[in-house]
Parts: sequence; structure tokens; C-alpha cells
Amino acid sequence: MNTSSNSRSSRKPVAQDRRSVQKDTPATPVRPQRAAFAPVGRIPILNVSPVIEDGRWAAKGTVGEAFPVQATVFREGHDAWSAEAVLNRPDGSEAQRVRMVDIKPGLHRYEGWLVPDAVGEWSFHVESWSDPYRTWEHDATVKIEAGVDEQLMIDEGVRVLTRAAENMPEGSSEAQALTDAVAAMKAGGAPSSLLGHGISSAVKDALATYPLRDMLTFSAEYPLNVDRELALYGSWYEFFPRSTGAYQNSDGSWVSGTLKTATAELDRVKAMGFTVAYLTPIHPIGTTNRKGRNNTLTAEPGDPGSPYGIGSEDGGHDAIHPDLGTFDDFDSFVARARELDLEVALDIALQASPDHPWVKEHPEWFTTRVDGSIAYAENPPKKYQDIYPLNFDNDPEGIYVAIRDMLALWADHGVTLFRIDNPHTKPLEFWQRLLAEFREKYPDVVFLAEAFTNPPMLQALGAIGFHQSYNYFAWRNEKEEIEEYLLELAYDSDHLVRPAFWPTTHDILTPYMQRGGVPAFAIRAILAATGSPTWGIYSGYELAENIARPGAEEQIDNEKYQYKARDYSLGESTGITPLLTKLNAIRAAHPALQKLRNVTIHPTTSDKILCFSKRTREGEGEQDIVIVVLNLDPFITHDALIDLNFAALGLDGYAGRSITVHDELSDQTFEWDQRPFVRLDPHGSAAHVLSVRVS
Amino acid sequence: MNTSSNSRSSRKPVAQDRRSVQKDTPATPVRPQRAAFAPVGRIPILNVSPVIEDGRWAAKGTVGEAFPVQATVFREGHDAWSAEAVLNRPDGSEAQRVRMVDIKPGLHRYEGWLVPDAVGEWSFHVESWSDPYRTWEHDATVKIEAGVDEQLMIDEGVRVLTRAAENMPEGSSEAQALTDAVAAMKAGGAPSSLLGHGISSAVKDALATYPLRDMLTFSAEYPLNVDRELALYGSWYEFFPRSTGAYQNSDGSWVSGTLKTATAELDRVKAMGFTVAYLTPIHPIGTTNRKGRNNTLTAEPGDPGSPYGIGSEDGGHDAIHPDLGTFDDFDSFVARARELDLEVALDIALQASPDHPWVKEHPEWFTTRVDGSIAYAENPPKKYQDIYPLNFDNDPEGIYVAIRDMLALWADHGVTLFRIDNPHTKPLEFWQRLLAEFREKYPDVVFLAEAFTNPPMLQALGAIGFHQSYNYFAWRNEKEEIEEYLLELAYDSDHLVRPAFWPTTHDILTPYMQRGGVPAFAIRAILAATGSPTWGIYSGYELAENIARPGAEEQIDNEKYQYKARDYSLGESTGITPLLTKLNAIRAAHPALQKLRNVTIHPTTSDKILCFSKRTREGEGEQDIVIVVLNLDPFITHDALIDLNFAALGLDGYAGRSITVHDELSDQTFEWDQRPFVRLDPHGSAAHVLSVRVS
Repeated sequence: MNTSSNSRSSRKPVAQDRRSVQKDTPATPVRPQRAAFAPVGRIPILNVSPVIEDGRWAAKGTVGEAFPVQATVFREGHDAWSAEAVLNRPDGSEAQRVRMVDIKPGLHRYEGWLVPDAVGEWSFHVESWSDPYRTWEHDATVKIEAGVDEQLMIDEGVRVLTRAAENMPEGSSEAQALTDAVAAMKAGGAPSSLLGHGISSAVKDALATYPLRDMLTFSAEYPLNVDRELALYGSWYEFFPRSTGAYQNSDGSWVSGTLKTATAELDRVKAMGFTVAYLTPIHPIGTTNRKGRNNTLTAEPGDPGSPYGIGSEDGGHDAIHPDLGTFDDFDSFVARARELDLEVALDIALQASPDHPWVKEHPEWFTTRVDGSIAYAENPPKKYQDIYPLNFDNDPEGIYVAIRDMLALWADHGVTLFRIDNPHTKPLEFWQRLLAEFREKYPDVVFLAEAFTNPPMLQALGAIGFHQSYNYFAWRNEKEEIEEYLLELAYDSDHLVRPAFWPTTHDILTPYMQRGGVPAFAIRAILAATGSPTWGIYSGYELAENIARPGAEEQIDNEKYQYKARDYSLGESTGITPLLTKLNAIRAAHPALQKLRNVTIHPTTSDKILCFSKRTREGEGEQDIVIVVLNLDPFITHDALIDLNFAALGLDGYAGRSITVHDELSDQTFEWDQRPFVRLDPHGSAAHVLSVRVS
Repeated sequence: MNTSSNSRSSRKPVAQDRRSVQKDTPATPVRPQRAAFAPVGRIPILNVSPVIEDGRWAAKGTVGEAFPVQATVFREGHDAWSAEAVLNRPDGSEAQRVRMVDIKPGLHRYEGWLVPDAVGEWSFHVESWSDPYRTWEHDATVKIEAGVDEQLMIDEGVRVLTRAAENMPEGSSEAQALTDAVAAMKAGGAPSSLLGHGISSAVKDALATYPLRDMLTFSAEYPLNVDRELALYGSWYEFFPRSTGAYQNSDGSWVSGTLKTATAELDRVKAMGFTVAYLTPIHPIGTTNRKGRNNTLTAEPGDPGSPYGIGSEDGGHDAIHPDLGTFDDFDSFVARARELDLEVALDIALQASPDHPWVKEHPEWFTTRVDGSIAYAENPPKKYQDIYPLNFDNDPEGIYVAIRDMLALWADHGVTLFRIDNPHTKPLEFWQRLLAEFREKYPDVVFLAEAFTNPPMLQALGAIGFHQSYNYFAWRNEKEEIEEYLLELAYDSDHLVRPAFWPTTHDILTPYMQRGGVPAFAIRAILAATGSPTWGIYSGYELAENIARPGAEEQIDNEKYQYKARDYSLGESTGITPLLTKLNAIRAAHPALQKLRNVTIHPTTSDKILCFSKRTREGEGEQDIVIVVLNLDPFITHDALIDLNFAALGLDGYAGRSITVHDELSDQTFEWDQRPFVRLDPHGSAAHVLSVRVS
């Protein structure tokens, strides 16, 4: 790490305390650099955001998505000032510059939205300056209106405009506009008329292009990692390849699905409009202490075991389960996915069955107990004897290289997304290093963190480089908590974490989903598909599979532990398959649904009816506004009046008038005023997903 | 400024934008250094506080006052970890180290309180580590209780304790305690009994002294400027020296008070228990456009003018008004103050009357208008023609040196506090430089900012170095807003700003004070004296002077513009003089009232009865607890039940029992349970100021 060369940092604490003699700790752990003092600057710029860990780590940006830069900018006395947010490309060149707006008058909190247009390590900063033209404009307007110092103010105006003109390119139309104004002001006349020349729109437009910037002041520069759009926006479909095409023989034994049958499944995935095909682990499965059906401790003959119990004599994380096929089959799977414009996600669980080759080749990668045995996973007193966790501290370099190379193998075979199982049980410094190396060598590869854990860990995994994250969506079912969560994800943690909304997974079947019948599956699909740019569906959702294993919040007869054949044609009769298809089509057609930082909540008169909207910002392409109104109660019809926030929708001009909204779900069109009435039946159509048609 | 040597910073944006060609701006403004990347570390330490501007500026610390260090500390998986906050002296040596406590379980927010003991540029950081002993303690306790892996867990304990003993000084009693435990555990017996040896208090005490710290991880180091106690705790008394001993001749003309009469006044100031004598400006006063009585635009003959209209042919800021006396008189004033253990504060208003020597000698220090005249102060269309503001941008270096040397002159004559008038109308970079130089050369000198302005400016002035600040206290009169403000000052802005509570000043007489009669003066004095470590009283308060000039929120016949003779003996009859005296005595006797970061609000059943407490923390000297209960209504009696928070008072052990409280105002003693009843009459005694007597 860096050692600062400035004088303050040379005064590092000296290890004096006798307890510092720590025999088991490396002598020189990395210590982050102490920040160097910097003066406040002439026009202060304070509390810039987004900033992570004092600017040591990069905030998240996505190609094509606007992100907000904020800063507190102010100055002494009464004179005017302005501020701009500036976006810098990885090579340091300036990509974009926007005038910031005071969004909290009285607190001088300024905001500007910037849009990066390529992947890479970008940065941003803020500039402020004294604005002599706006100072004069204010003073002259007030004083001439009051009949005070009239000629003096005109003369001062001539001075500031002359100076501004000299600051513009010679011969430019802007310089000419100012020269003309100066000539008119010198020509004489009524003071208010002379003032009019000085504050004309031609003058103001010229100064917007070439502002007169005195006392230019800079903030520090802050890093922004820009990822490809798939890091933010994607529609995932999860399935167990062995379940595809699996069938039961007449003797009751099962024949496993394969990568070939999984390849056939891709057409169905594509037909529903998904963009990512996500495979649970495809590696060989251990036999020692293999789990049986419904998570029983003993497997029966023929039980295939959990694909998360990875590794056997057939190989480990870099191998394919022989039942599923070969690398050639995998390559064919990827090739077919590409033909269909699908990207392939692979589930990576960094743990070993007792039969994993690593156990024999690298017993030092695991924890050896005092009796010489290798420690299995535990959460005392619970034991998980089919799994050996890696001990990343025993040989950090060896383990790092093995995992990096294993992931590179899959990336080289065309995997562009890794769904990382339980990253919060591995050291964060491991992930930070790995993600940095992949960002450099495989900038197209996206990592999804499956860390259902406390908020600091969930957010830290995002902050150190995971592109997107599972989160608490599945457990947010009440209107108020959903509203809060949408806002938190869009505006509080957006620089740290990109959300993925999954109504269910192979591990998650919440009480809401267990009890709410088919309507619950419809409601939660609509909310996931519209509430987050990335959403995911676990296969079987089409069938509204909602029976839980007693005592657990996951599916009974879970395909983690057994083969599962499904008749997806039933998905038509539940209505869920057509709904998923329609939702993905709506998402594809509406850029507003592909962005995160653009949610507005609209109050309604019912605590069961949620209303929110999303709309594109400047620089994000065409204007697009979507309003979602959703009955959260899967049992009965509710109605409500909605207080639409026209200003937030960008519809200030429509106050007192009506707008045309088109329901993309029902294909109906309505004329809505600012307080529309809705009635939503969960057994009919639980929601409106409305596109606003602005004339 | 520093130019970073790391590779990221070399990619500074290149000036490409054509608008960057700014002829009026210096070519290379200072740009704060970009932070260097730092890895997350093995046991992550995130979001450390207090941190200002990414650690570029120092947080505020005071000699003898505890301050809180917080950080989010967590790790992967299930193993245990610990964290310590570490305080480092200006020379880099370690001064103090405390174990941090998780104050928001589930969010892993850790806190530790540190107490610096000398003035200077200190720093702090956080250390975290894997705690193998606590991991074993947890696992072994759970598993042995469940009858699982009993001998294995004992053997693991032997291993960790043996390792811990090796980490302790040879021959220490701590090492012996562990060696004994290991021997007992090896001797055999019932598992629970063997476990008992491993988790005995002797073992835990030894490990508290010499913890086994694996994977030691460091946060960055953050700066803390530690000031003398007077920066935090002081009792100010403000007066106009010319009013002391001023009298009217039989012809109606006035004779000015002098520094000699002001010196005589010190005995009265001291008798009331104040510790700072604060003089409004003592410099020569201009005659051009001099203001008359009650802020009229034209002075009558004999009107002395405002001491804030500084400068005449008799001199400027480095001179003394001839009516007041000489530097010898000033030195005598300071000497007498020192005899009385009073420190001297001087009011500094950095502005000039048209007659100030600077106007002739340095017209370039002011703003010249286009007509060649010097610009007077304005807030268009208002004009203040008796005042020329300095233009700090015209000759920054010349003005800086002049002001610095002027302040040094007064400091050399014994002034130890400067009350800075309207610092928010001067550039912040000027103050930051000045305060840094004074902190180095005159570390005992305290600067008080009089910036009644927006919160960002008020807080930024503190952040760049002002020791203490006037604030919004005078306008916080309702219970809820007072509660919020006390908490904000104690825990949100404490690292930025030290408050000074002034019920009135020569500029401020709020509607509450105008209407509430003598009780209002009593109530606000009690609140100011107990709510903030620094409070101040403007002379005349003793007499409950509460008549405002019509249309203004300040005194009629304000002594800013005229002589004012007072009969302070009337202060006895109002009861205010004895109250001030008693309040200062209580403050002196109770260290809890001398600290900022120690407020607890206790709910009451009345919206007019406020209850808060303060208590000393570990390292701040003797245990001291003060409870204040105050009727905020100056008109009628209110009663209430109070929900005392015994835990916050450190009285957990008293749940269900009563405590003895002594009212320092009335000298009464009460026995209080956790829900005492109070009735407070603003015309009798509006408050209890209770010392808790813990047996």
C-alpha cells in the first residue's frame, strides 16, 4: 500500500503498547493512507457524494444510466455562485459537465446528474465559482426597480459584460451577443430598458455556454466504476439442468436431465422473454454424507444429492457432473443461448464435499481440528457433515489462484454471469481482489452476490465490487415497507448495491407466497419485474408451486435433493406464464423500467394499494414514464384514490388537465386526472402497469 | 498542494473543454488530492466517525472531554471478532485504547469513547481482529451443553489457551492463569467442569489484558484537533466598556465610561461567577455617516456612534478609542482580570468606517465601483453607508498579514478569546489559514464565530477551525425543538461545532424574551447555563431589559448607538443576579455541565416541561449526574410525570428503587422513583437542577 509522503502521515503511531507484541499476526498489516490536508477553497464544496470510504473505493455506475452527484456549495456574503458536476473518462478526459441545481434551498445542497457511456474506471468531481454576472443581474434588477444607483448599475453591467465577452472565443455568436448588449447599454435610455439589454435571453444563453467563472474551485476527484448494462438490467430464469427432461422409469428410478435437455429448455426461457439463463451448480456431487430427499441426513439409493455438495472422484468445481454431459455439451448450451440472445449464469458455491479432489490434494485449504479430522460446516450445535468449508487463511494465495483460474475456465467457456452462493461466509478481501482482477480481465462478467445477511455485509459486498445483490425483497410485503425499500435502493444504497428482485428461489418460499395462492405469484411477479431493473424467476414459478416443507420456508420435495419433472403447459392455465411473458415484454419496451435511480412513490388512500412510477432522465434516451398501481392483497379487491405527483412525473404542465395512460397489462387506455380512482381484483387483474402518453 | 504520486491520480482530467479557457481565473487552483485505493482488510472496519471531508480536516476534541469513535466492524461467517478505538498523541505515540461495544446489534456499529489530555494535533484509528478465544468460548459452551464433541472442544480449548499464554509476557500472572487453566483442562473430569476452567474469570481477565489478536486489521488514521477546556466550557459576560461608569452631565451631555471603569466592573462580573469578560469593540469610531440613536441614519452631536463602525483619524483595529483610554489602561484591565481568574474576550469586526486609516493607506483593500467610489456595505436595495467591507480578493496576502498582525497584537496584550463578528461574510479560506496559524502560535487563543446564518456555513466555520459558535439557541423555545437541538449539538454536529448559548445579545431580543417578563429571563438563563458548556450573558440581562425597538428584535435605546448607564442593584430585586450567580456556581461544581457529548432526554407528560440530564463519562473525572427539569412556559404553572431513563443515568441497579436528588437551586432534597411528579411555577421556581446522589 501507499505510504504518504506528506508530513502529517509521517507521524504514524509507534507500536509502544506491550500488547502490540502479537506473535500470531503478520508484522505489517496494510494500513490505509491518511488523507492529506486540503484547504477549503474559495467557493467551498463540501460533503460530495457518492463517496465510499473517503473516496478509496469506487461508487457504482452503469453504462447509459444517470447517477446523481451532490455537494454542499456555498460562499461568504451576498454574491452569487454556481456549481457544475463533471464526469471524467478513464483516460482522464472530460466526458460531461452539467450545471448543478440547489435541491434544498437554505441548505445549499446542489445536485447534477451525469451519464457515463462506456465500461471502465471513471471519476467525477465538482467545480464551483463566483458568478459576477449573476451577482450583477440580481443587484441591478433590485436597485433599478427601487430607483437606486441606476446609472451606476448600468455602468457596472457594461463592465461585467465586457469582461465576459473577452472570455468568449473571438468572433463567436456568443461574444457578439454580449458586444451588442454592451453597445445598447451604452447608447442610453430608460434604466429599465438598458437593464433589459443586459439580462436578455441572448445574453443569458451566451453566458450559459461560456460562463464567467471567477475564483474557480475544485472538489477532490472521486472514483466511479462503470459496468455494462447487464449489471443493472436483466431478466433471469433459474433452473436445475438435471430437472429438465428428467423422467422416471417404470421401476421408479429416475433418469437425469442433461445439458442437452437443458439446451432444449432455452427456447421456453427465451419465449417468456428472459435474457439470462441461470444454471444451479453443474459439478460432480459427493457421496459421503450425501443429503437425501427433503434435506434428510441419509440419502437413499438413487438420490442424486445436492448440487451444492460439490466434488467427487469425477472432479471438483472445474468439472461437469457426468450425468449432465461434457464440456462439449456445455459449449453447445452456451452457443444455443447466444443464438437466442441469452446470457448464461452459473452458480458458484465455494465449498467442498468430503469427496472433492481439493480435500486430498490440498487438505491444508481446510480447517484441521485438534483430532486431525477436517472440520465440516457447523453453526454450533448444528452440523452440516456433507460440506467442508474452505479456510481462506491457511493458504490465501493458493486458494485465490485456484478459484480465480476455475472461474476463468467457465468465463472462457462463455459464462458471463456468476451467481455466488453465500459470499458472506468468505473473507471480503478475497472477493475484493478477485472482483478487481475480473473487472480488468473479464470486464463483461457480472457477479451476483447471494448474501442474505445483515445490511452492513450485504452493502459491503457491493461496495467491494459485486455487481448486483440479492436482498430483502422477498420479505417486504407490506405497502409502507415496500415504499421505503424502493426509495432506499434507488437513492440511499444505489452507489453501493444494485438490486435483484426474486419473488422465490430454490431456497426461499415466504409465508406470503405459501398462503396467497396464484394471485400472490402474480402480484409478486409484477412487483419484482417493475420495481427493480434486474429480476429473477425460479423455475416452477409458472405453476405457482407453493407447498413448503413443514418447518421450512422452502419448497417441499425441493429439487435441491431430488429430480423434479414439471409439466409447464400448466403454466398457461395458472396465467403465470403469460404474465411473465408480458412483464418481460413491457420491461424490454420501457427504458424507465431498466433503471434504478428513478422511483417516485405516489400516495394512495388504501394501505393495500401501492403506486409508484419510474421515468427516464435526460441523457438516458427517449422520455419514458411508467406508473405501476398494484393491489398487494392476494385475497380481496381493494380500491383507492391516488395522489399523483405530476411534478415528479415531469408533467408540471398538466396540472388541472388529464393525461392519457395505457395499461400495458390489459391493453386498456384511460384518461387520468391528478387524483384517479382505481379498483383492483387480485383474482382478475391485480395491477395497472401504465405507460404515460405525453402528446 | 500535494500532488499524489499514485497511478490513479495521474489521470487528472485534462482541460479540454473550451470553456476552461478562463482568463480571469488563476491557472492552477488547488485541487484536493484523490484518495488512494486501500483493500478492505481481513476484518473490515468501515464508515469510521468522526471524519470530516474524507479525513482531510480534523474533528474537534477538548482536553478532558470524552469523544466517541464509531465504526462498522464485521466479518465473514460465524467466528468472533473484536474492535478497539485507539487515540494517538501529536507525536504519534499511543495515548489510549478502549474496547469498542456494538451499539446497534444487527448493524455491527461499534463505539468507543476516548479522552485526550493535552492540546494539539492528535489522531485516532480503529483496530479489529479475529478473536479465536471468544470463538472457542462460544462454540465450546454451546456444544458441551448439547453434549456434542465434548472432548474435542476441550482439546481445542487447550490449543487456543496455550497459544494465548505464549502471547503473554513470560512469567506474568496472566500467563500463569492460562497455564493453570490448561493444566486443569488436561487433568480430566466432567466436560462442563473442564470447560469451566477455560472460561473462568481469571482466564477472561488475562485475555482482556493480552487479547489473542489474529488477523489484525487497521482503519485509516483520522485527525483530531484538541483544544483547551475554555474552547468548550466557559461563562461569558458581555459589556460595552463605554457604558460602565458612563454618566450624564446636568446639561444632558454624556461622559463616556473608560477602560478604567470597565476594570472596576470586573469585580461584579467575577462576583456573579463568570469566567470570561467580553468587551465589544474598543477601537476608534468613524464620524462619516455615523449612525445615531436607535440606528437612525444621522447622528446628533454627542452621539458616540457604533463601536462596529471602526476606524477614525485616531486609528483602526490596532488602536484604542481615546475616550476609553490607552494601551496601559488595557493592560491594567487584563491584569486585573487575571487576578480575578477571568479571561478577556475582544470583539473583532473586520470592517471599516470611511474614516479608517486603511481606506487611505490601502484603498485597494476595498471594492472600487465603476464610478471610482469605494463600495459601502449593501444588501440591495438596503445600504449601510457607515461601513466599507474589505474585499479579501483584491490583496489577499496584504489583508491577511494586516489582520493576523492586528490579532497578534491583542493576543500579545493578553486577549485569549476573540469574538468574531459576522465571519460568514469573509472568505472561508481566509479563516482556515488564520485559525491554523493561531492554533500553532497562540494555542491558548479561542475564536468564537458569530455567524447567524444557514447551517452549512455555520458548521463549515466550525469545521475549518473556529473553536466555538453562536447558534440557533435563542430561537429554540418549544420543548420538542429544544430536545432535538440538544441532541443534535451533542451527537450530530459535536465534531464540527462547539455551541455557545446566549439567551440575548446586543443584537438579539427574541419575541419570547420581549413577552415573557422576568420569568422568561430566568427560564432561558437556566436552560442556557445547563444546556451548553459555554453560555453567555449580555449586560442588562440582570435587569430583565425586554423592551424592543419597534420593528426590530433588539433592545430599544440600544447601547450600540448611545451611552447606557444602569443601576445593577435592581438585579437583586428581579432575582436574576442571584440566579446567574447560583447557576455559575452550579456549573463550576458539576463537571457534567462542563461537557457537551453527554445529554439524555427524559420524556415528560407535559409539552411545557422539559427534562434532560447530563453525566460524566469514564475518564472525565468523578462520576457526576445532573438532571434538569424546566417549565418552559413563562406565564403559568405546569406539572408533569417524568419517565426517567435510569439506564442512561447509569442507575441500572436502581430499577424499582428510589434515588436521592438534591435541587441545587432550592437546596431541597427529594427521593425520586423512576416516574417522579413535578410542579413548577415560573413566578416561583421554574426549574429543578438536581444533583443525583448515588450511595
